[in-house]
Amino acid sequence: MTVIAYLGPAGTFTEQALHRFVGDLQMSDVRSLPLPSPAAAIDAVRSGEADFACVAIENSVDGPVTPTFDALSSGAGVNIYREVDLDISFGIMVRPGTKLEDISTLATHPVAHQQVKGWITRHIPQALFLPASSNAAAAVEVAEGRADAAAAPEPAAAMHGLELVAKRVADHRGARTRFALVGPKHQPPEPTGNDRTAIIFSLPNEPGSLVGALQEFAFRGVDMARIESRPTREKLGTYLFHVTLVGHIADSAVAEALRALYLRCKDLHFLGSWPAVPDDAASPRTTVDVSAADRWVHAARTGED
Amino acid sequence: MTVIAYLGPAGTFTEQALHRFVGDLQMSDVRSLPLPSPAAAIDAVRSGEADFACVAIENSVDGPVTPTFDALSSGAGVNIYREVDLDISFGIMVRPGTKLEDISTLATHPVAHQQVKGWITRHIPQALFLPASSNAAAAVEVAEGRADAAAAPEPAAAMHGLELVAKRVADHRGARTRFALVGPKHQPPEPTGNDRTAIIFSLPNEPGSLVGALQEFAFRGVDMARIESRPTREKLGTYLFHVTLVGHIADSAVAEALRALYLRCKDLHFLGSWPAVPDDAASPRTTVDVSAADRWVHAARTGED
Repeated sequence: MTVIAYLGPAGTFTEQALHRFVGDLQMSDVRSLPLPSPAAAIDAVRSGEADFACVAIENSVDGPVTPTFDALSSGAGVNIYREVDLDISFGIMVRPGTKLEDISTLATHPVAHQQVKGWITRHIPQALFLPASSNAAAAVEVAEGRADAAAAPEPAAAMHGLELVAKRVADHRGARTRFALVGPKHQPPEPTGNDRTAIIFSLPNEPGSLVGALQEFAFRGVDMARIESRPTREKLGTYLFHVTLVGHIADSAVAEALRALYLRCKDLHFLGSWPAVPDDAASPRTTVDVSAADRWVHAARTGED
Repeated sequence: MTVIAYLGPAGTFTEQALHRFVGDLQMSDVRSLPLPSPAAAIDAVRSGEADFACVAIENSVDGPVTPTFDALSSGAGVNIYREVDLDISFGIMVRPGTKLEDISTLATHPVAHQQVKGWITRHIPQALFLPASSNAAAAVEVAEGRADAAAAPEPAAAMHGLELVAKRVADHRGARTRFALVGPKHQPPEPTGNDRTAIIFSLPNEPGSLVGALQEFAFRGVDMARIESRPTREKLGTYLFHVTLVGHIADSAVAEALRALYLRCKDLHFLGSWPAVPDDAASPRTTVDVSAADRWVHAARTGED
């Protein structure tokens, strides 16, 4: 049996992502294990209680899911094996009979709140936001009478005997969340030709260290998909850098760049290589206008418009 | 008269930072204007209601204050003129006579919550967190009976007739927050020899665009102090990059790098050049161990420890 830990209870988007992973990987005899946070799900892999954890890593509205990255970076022993994207919209659900004007509290996860607060302001401006540990947990809060409404995945309404008063609520059209399947550290999946590699590193606090480190990728033609600075929690202005590279650790350019980066780092932590979600078509290249660049620098230097 | 907008009400750390700016810049005839969010303070500068806005930009525990960056990037017309760092610790305050065991709700700003939740778990585990728009607003919630306790700057207790049940509460020793003084766009302050320059840019969605853009700094010896990817809110995996450079737009290397960057960007937005807060001593350089780098790459490729 394969045990997969996830942010519960049943009915979260994370559970939907878990089923996508199970389907894509043709896994069978799977037991899903709901836990109260992405950190708890990752710790369950570290302790051996679960074989995998399914966790949200990034959202197109709110950016990186920082508790997940903080949990991944706070100890070794786990790698990312796969990613999947889900379209995100919410149902607003209440106990049967509750009217919009009766809603004085609305529970949801803080990341979900960022995606529905425009709708709330327009339709139930009186509602106080109560942060929940997950949006399915918010549905439970409503079912048990501790909140009047929840913003949660629509299937959570039927699961918890609630009524949908609004469907497909999303302040930003096309909102998506990316989820990762995290497992114990072992050999990464085979390269597919379109892979991602994630690392976390810290650098000595000296001039030029960040640009010098990123040069190791540039020299070798290794591209970055994203980069984030997270505080070390030791001193303001000192960071852990979270970088996702385009490529696989089995690619010689990626391996050589990481070997060189290692020599510059205080600490370098490998988070895995895995197949990328296919991208949409690239956007067209910007037209080059040299005189516009000159005008831009002049305006910045002088404060003119 | 100079009007400075800030995250109110009176008693926030932002108000303390405001007074530091007023003192450092020897301003006189200042009126402080409390507003409900950093975005509202920045908008007051854009509309001409305020001459400056004092806003938190970064915290050593929780990282960048993303609502501030989102407000700075969501429109032109303002620049950063100065920064200041404050040591951060909290007082836990209640209505006189309330005991720790009587506290069932604790209000504070979500960023403050990240810095006191360890203390809360140890001392008042039963307390439910109520998010407040500022930590001084949380003190008002307590004074008016809508919450039992607040985590806020200690002077807020006396301002609102509350009693301190704990002082200098901070889960992470040495926690600091950096604040910026934001004003309407005009010529940046003179270079001091230790300056920072902030920009926000977006790039065409094509391979190599981020590394290529950062190369423009590396080629010219321009260092980065920090870099952040923020979602564009249009499509997952597309970002606005927030970069703080070491140097001043009046420096020819910085101006040349930004001129070259402009030609690669879909959009490039200048947020100002200003004097840096002096740094502590740099940390010692890492020892170079080439065989350790080889072992690191081998372990990542094979999953061995």
